Amino acid sequence: MIVDCAHYRAGVRQHEEALGIEDAARIAAAAVEGEFVWLGLRDPSDAELDLAQRDFDLNPLAVEDAKETHQRPKLEGYDGSVFIVLRPARYVDESESVEFGEIHLFLAPHYAIAVRHGEASALQPARRLLERSNLLRHGVGAVAWAVLDKVVDDYAPVVDGIDNDIQEVEEDIFARRDDSTQRIYFLKREVIQFHRAVAPLLPALEALERGAYPEMDRELRGYFRDVADHVRRVEEQITSHRELLTSILEANLALLSVRQNAVVRSISAWAAIIAVPTFLASIWGMNFTHMPELDEPWGYWIALAMMAVAVASLYGFFRRIRWL
Amino acid sequence: MIVDCAHYRAGVRQHEEALGIEDAARIAAAAVEGEFVWLGLRDPSDAELDLAQRDFDLNPLAVEDAKETHQRPKLEGYDGSVFIVLRPARYVDESESVEFGEIHLFLAPHYAIAVRHGEASALQPARRLLERSNLLRHGVGAVAWAVLDKVVDDYAPVVDGIDNDIQEVEEDIFARRDDSTQRIYFLKREVIQFHRAVAPLLPALEALERGAYPEMDRELRGYFRDVADHVRRVEEQITSHRELLTSILEANLALLSVRQNAVVRSISAWAAIIAVPTFLASIWGMNFTHMPELDEPWGYWIALAMMAVAVASLYGFFRRIRWL
Amino acid sequence: MIVDCAHYRAGVRQHEEALGIEDAARIAAAAVEGEFVWLGLRDPSDAELDLAQRDFDLNPLAVEDAKETHQRPKLEGYDGSVFIVLRPARYVDESESVEFGEIHLFLAPHYAIAVRHGEASALQPARRLLERSNLLRHGVGAVAWAVLDKVVDDYAPVVDGIDNDIQEVEEDIFARRDDSTQRIYFLKREVIQFHRAVAPLLPALEALERGAYPEMDRELRGYFRDVADHVRRVEEQITSHRELLTSILEANLALLSVRQNAVVRSISAWAAIIAVPTFLASIWGMNFTHMPELDEPWGYWIALAMMAVAVASLYGFFRRIRWL
Amino acid sequence: MIVDCAHYRAGVRQHEEALGIEDAARIAAAAVEGEFVWLGLRDPSDAELDLAQRDFDLNPLAVEDAKETHQRPKLEGYDGSVFIVLRPARYVDESESVEFGEIHLFLAPHYAIAVRHGEASALQPARRLLERSNLLRHGVGAVAWAVLDKVVDDYAPVVDGIDNDIQEVEEDIFARRDDSTQRIYFLKREVIQFHRAVAPLLPALEALERGAYPEMDRELRGYFRDVADHVRRVEEQITSHRELLTSILEANLALLSVRQNAVVRSISAWAAIIAVPTFLASIWGMNFTHMPELDEPWGYWIALAMMAVAVASLYGFFRRIRWL
Amino acid sequence: MIVDCAHYRAGVRQHEEALGIEDAARIAAAAVEGEFVWLGLRDPSDAELDLAQRDFDLNPLAVEDAKETHQRPKLEGYDGSVFIVLRPARYVDESESVEFGEIHLFLAPHYAIAVRHGEASALQPARRLLERSNLLRHGVGAVAWAVLDKVVDDYAPVVDGIDNDIQEVEEDIFARRDDSTQRIYFLKREVIQFHRAVAPLLPALEALERGAYPEMDRELRGYFRDVADHVRRVEEQITSHRELLTSILEANLALLSVRQNAVVRSISAWAAIIAVPTFLASIWGMNFTHMPELDEPWGYWIALAMMAVAVASLYGFFRRIRWL
Repeated sequence: MIVDCAHYRAGVRQHEEALGIEDAARIAAAAVEGEFVWLGLRDPSDAELDLAQRDFDLNPLAVEDAKETHQRPKLEGYDGSVFIVLRPARYVDESESVEFGEIHLFLAPHYAIAVRHGEASALQPARRLLERSNLLRHGVGAVAWAVLDKVVDDYAPVVDGIDNDIQEVEEDIFARRDDSTQRIYFLKREVIQFHRAVAPLLPALEALERGAYPEMDRELRGYFRDVADHVRRVEEQITSHRELLTSILEANLALLSVRQNAVVRSISAWAAIIAVPTFLASIWGMNFTHMPELDEPWGYWIALAMMAVAVASLYGFFRRIRWL
Repeated sequence: MIVDCAHYRAGVRQHEEALGIEDAARIAAAAVEGEFVWLGLRDPSDAELDLAQRDFDLNPLAVEDAKETHQRPKLEGYDGSVFIVLRPARYVDESESVEFGEIHLFLAPHYAIAVRHGEASALQPARRLLERSNLLRHGVGAVAWAVLDKVVDDYAPVVDGIDNDIQEVEEDIFARRDDSTQRIYFLKREVIQFHRAVAPLLPALEALERGAYPEMDRELRGYFRDVADHVRRVEEQITSHRELLTSILEANLALLSVRQNAVVRSISAWAAIIAVPTFLASIWGMNFTHMPELDEPWGYWIALAMMAVAVASLYGFFRRIRWL
Repeated sequence: MIVDCAHYRAGVRQHEEALGIEDAARIAAAAVEGEFVWLGLRDPSDAELDLAQRDFDLNPLAVEDAKETHQRPKLEGYDGSVFIVLRPARYVDESESVEFGEIHLFLAPHYAIAVRHGEASALQPARRLLERSNLLRHGVGAVAWAVLDKVVDDYAPVVDGIDNDIQEVEEDIFARRDDSTQRIYFLKREVIQFHRAVAPLLPALEALERGAYPEMDRELRGYFRDVADHVRRVEEQITSHRELLTSILEANLALLSVRQNAVVRSISAWAAIIAVPTFLASIWGMNFTHMPELDEPWGYWIALAMMAVAVASLYGFFRRIRWL
Repeated sequence: MIVDCAHYRAGVRQHEEALGIEDAARIAAAAVEGEFVWLGLRDPSDAELDLAQRDFDLNPLAVEDAKETHQRPKLEGYDGSVFIVLRPARYVDESESVEFGEIHLFLAPHYAIAVRHGEASALQPARRLLERSNLLRHGVGAVAWAVLDKVVDDYAPVVDGIDNDIQEVEEDIFARRDDSTQRIYFLKREVIQFHRAVAPLLPALEALERGAYPEMDRELRGYFRDVADHVRRVEEQITSHRELLTSILEANLALLSVRQNAVVRSISAWAAIIAVPTFLASIWGMNFTHMPELDEPWGYWIALAMMAVAVASLYGFFRRIRWL
Repeated sequence: MIVDCAHYRAGVRQHEEALGIEDAARIAAAAVEGEFVWLGLRDPSDAELDLAQRDFDLNPLAVEDAKETHQRPKLEGYDGSVFIVLRPARYVDESESVEFGEIHLFLAPHYAIAVRHGEASALQPARRLLERSNLLRHGVGAVAWAVLDKVVDDYAPVVDGIDNDIQEVEEDIFARRDDSTQRIYFLKREVIQFHRAVAPLLPALEALERGAYPEMDRELRGYFRDVADHVRRVEEQITSHRELLTSILEANLALLSVRQNAVVRSISAWAAIIAVPTFLASIWGMNFTHMPELDEPWGYWIALAMMAVAVASLYGFFRRIRWL
């Protein structure tokens, strides 16, 4: 599905309505310095991709990649053109999970094709923002920046969501509420997957920052450095999330042990409280002929009183040593 | 055993039937630019290998390696020729294990010899595919690519199989079914072995991508980069499998502790439920002469009722605090 | 809020009172070799930052960063100017936590703008000290050094505070006082965060030491090396804190297990001490007609004595094997 | 003790009997291109080493090293000569331990001195093999290769021995036989020590492969690469052994927990089976005057039957829930 | 305090008695090629250091460092002079701890100043040794080597001490003596601190080995390589100590679990042994009118015998299944 497609000259959009793929390709082929076409596709059919490949003469290996999702993020130069794979993410609060989309970017001097799969990181707002700035005159490199910036900015709420979950888990385990093992484990799994989406971006952005792709306008390097810096921050946060979750799992184990200690103690205390009067009763249940207290009228009451005293003092004792 | 052996000129197979080793060697020796011979052997006898070595003048150290299996994957250049060791894998569902084969590739400007040991990654389909493409005109480098691509593509179902097992184990431990420790451990062992088969491929492919072996046609570099990219993806997946399995083992330990807590609690609750009426019975089993309730006609029934009440209220109490 | 702002010529402050932003910018614009302006802002409003940006013509991306806090430490050159982000820290003893501030430094040949957020690392003392030294004649590089040195020096009490907490925790767990799991965990979290504030400084300082920024006076390199050395020391200490806390968590788990062993043993000992006399009583509670000892006048006393002896010898036995 | 010492010219041994140190040194001093002396010492006395040092003018620091064992493996060039330290290993099955020897190699254009300490890796077979090959005409580099190859080949049975022990331990812990903690720990200790003997070899061999020592004949590089490849394989295997042993230790902990759960459950089941009939008996042991069943002739038998039924149904129940 | 101070010319000490700081500085200032002064201070007062700084014109940043201890080891060149910080260590057997001193070395072409803090690594023996060798003619570089060599050699007994403690701990935990958790933890802490003292030395020594400091005589490089090699060995040993201690902590946890299993089993066995006869007694304590055995003269004795048989067979059974 074509989301939007426009022709830009000297950074200015030439028309409001979206072009078709064939028109766009024709304009791109005829474009001169300072002109380019930006085509945005969402969840395209294979037919649309094949059309784009034929018309724009895209690299077949790259198009192959764009058809299947679950790629790893990367940036590859095919002489004169650049192919970028991104994995945008969004945090789904209900399921405490991170959902990944996928964006494929084909960049050549006179066209930029952005293919988006999934919910995360809608690109239309990035296009609108860029059209209002004066960066588009730097050419397709500006499109690359805008898309990268959007995707990386959208990582921030994911990081915050995980941060928040970690804090909830911390509270849960130290308040000794329900067992949180499952939640901790699945959080950790999310973090590991998130890391896989983010980490490979860094070398790609550093290559852009260093100017490894001469197709990108030199003046954009500062912008790519800025995005790289955000990625570094996200990655450091993910790394500490991982470490924290590992520590939480260990702390959880210790707390379970502490809790078991407490349970065993309180159970034992109650066992003692019932065992002692039972023992007393069994004494007076013996059948010796000569047990003077048995015949006393107050015998039974004294016995009951002794049992009560035993229970009370044991209870008091166990309270004092904090077993109860 | 010779699986197939053919003579290619300008990317076109010259005949349908398979050549013998000696004929192949003769053609290779006489080959000019654009011609080569592709010999495919499976589980060859030492005699076949020695024949191939003599006729093709293969490097003795490489042939030595090809005779014994359990090599590590590698790519080595012997001036003018290249020797590649690969460890294809296949996932055996019944035993939840990964089975490794071994492929040795001898490449020189005018011949490519592929020696396969074991079940994994049959190469004949790769040859058929390549013969239908127009890549064979790039020479033996195309053979190297086809074999590498086949082996690496065949890693995908292994990764999926492990993925699937991990999900099953997750379900098992969080549903608190049988103890999964053994299954987790053996999965981890498979993953460690799989990693050893995959990881050394990366530097080899990066060398091909960088063009370290001038014998390989320059235009194939993009193809090798593509394979390298797949290997990177597989490796990242294996790395997260490892991490996940480590976390599962830890979570499992915590869950065992939780379960033990639960068992101890429910046992203790039942112990209390039986201890209290036993205590009551022991009171009325005392032999004091003056125990008024003993002589009442309703005494026994009241006693039984009190016991029933004690049992019921303890049961209710333990249900309320979730020990039962 | 402007903390201080002064014009320096040949390392000497030209006036005592603080300049306004516009005056400062005017002087900086007109400054010649050996002259610069040092503007110190604290928790500035966006309006102040925008004013500074317009007047000093600061890089918009850097100012964007300076407006939001929670940046990662970094050092970035924008041709002719340098932008530094620092995360000063201070240790809050009451809450055993590390509180982070943020300092942004804009450096150009003729001005240095320091923007501080939060409590940590007041910069006015560093300015006073620098004014009394003769380093200011090296230009804005000296300001960079003074600020870096102040921030890094202020890490020392944080390290000491954490050191101290770790020692307290060690004493606690080995003296088997209250459960320290929560405290250990939160200490570890602080250490992880502290590491994130410190570690990225090192490559930045090494770049200064190597002279990657020609704007900095060559003679200051030794000073930057000195700061880098302090950062290295802090980082090594943080790394050992992390390792120690991991080990403490593990030792804690072992100690909990030891303690549980001790509890189970002492409980079992007491259970035995009460079970044996109860058993004896149940023997003499049997209703056999012919139990000679039942009719002896001394029978009961002997029975009680036997129980007492059983209790005493069991108690002695359990003391001897250290279960009690 | 001199094991063997011979003079080689153009790769051919000049005589069968072993030379003395002084003769060997004289021949080496007078040797021309293509000639060298190979001296093999085993557990030499300090006097022998001092003699060799004086006569061959060995580097005093290297000889100092050769006198004491427990060196780490290394390869050092002293202009014109090379000093190599190796740590051969052998697996001692009785004690499940790895025993390390030590080999010091002094190489110069016209002599090779091999000093061996301990049992592992006898070098005489390597000399015999080399004398039968045609490699000796490459000079002392061939000796270096033969010794390195022998030592590294002798690592294979050690790896296999450890592999085998790990499999036994796996079987033991999953069959829940005796506690294997001690065995796992000592295996891990062996693996750590083995790693220390093997890992430093790799950079040394890579230096030889790259040709860092021009004293070694260029044509031997392929041979050194082959040895380096074996070392890499051994190192990867050691690394997975380590990981496996870590996982086994963790799995062992989980299994101990599982086993404790099982024990606690079965104990509790038996406790319940005995507690219920005891409670029933205590009911009929009460002294109420009006307990109609007590006076029935069938009362006792019914009571015993009820107890039996209680025991049987509890037993059945616990079997059903798999606590017994 | 001045330990010793002498003037050397062509490697020969010019006088026996120690010079004062001022005389030494005067000689150093007037020294020509081949002459230098070696001043040894121990725990100097700030006044002595200030005097040395003024007279020898030492770098103020380095002197600042020399006044405070707890520096990290490092080697820094200040054009023409070199400043080295070392952390010698000694093993204190009584407290099983490692005690660190600190040595600061100021080296310039014509003087070497060694400042020592703390007990570890007295330098006077190193001076005596060096004076007897012929290395002093290489100038102050020889002093650097002698001090480094002394410090690194003194690490060996520390490594041995830790080795020994680890062996004791191993024996303790596998012999299941007292709980060793505390000892293991503090050993690990010592090892972590020791690592911090040793690890930073390596890059410094490698710089000396590579000849990064032209002030050091070229011929000494072999000597520095020798020291670097020792440091590498010490570092590898520390690394395995760390790993071993981590494994010991884990093994310890498993052993505690095993021990708890054993305790729980033996307790349960004893509980069963007492519960069964108690149950039998409670049967014959029932008050049924018709319990034929109660009236038999042999009833009581049979009952006692049955109890004894029950106890004996349970005991035998539990012995057989190894619970007792």
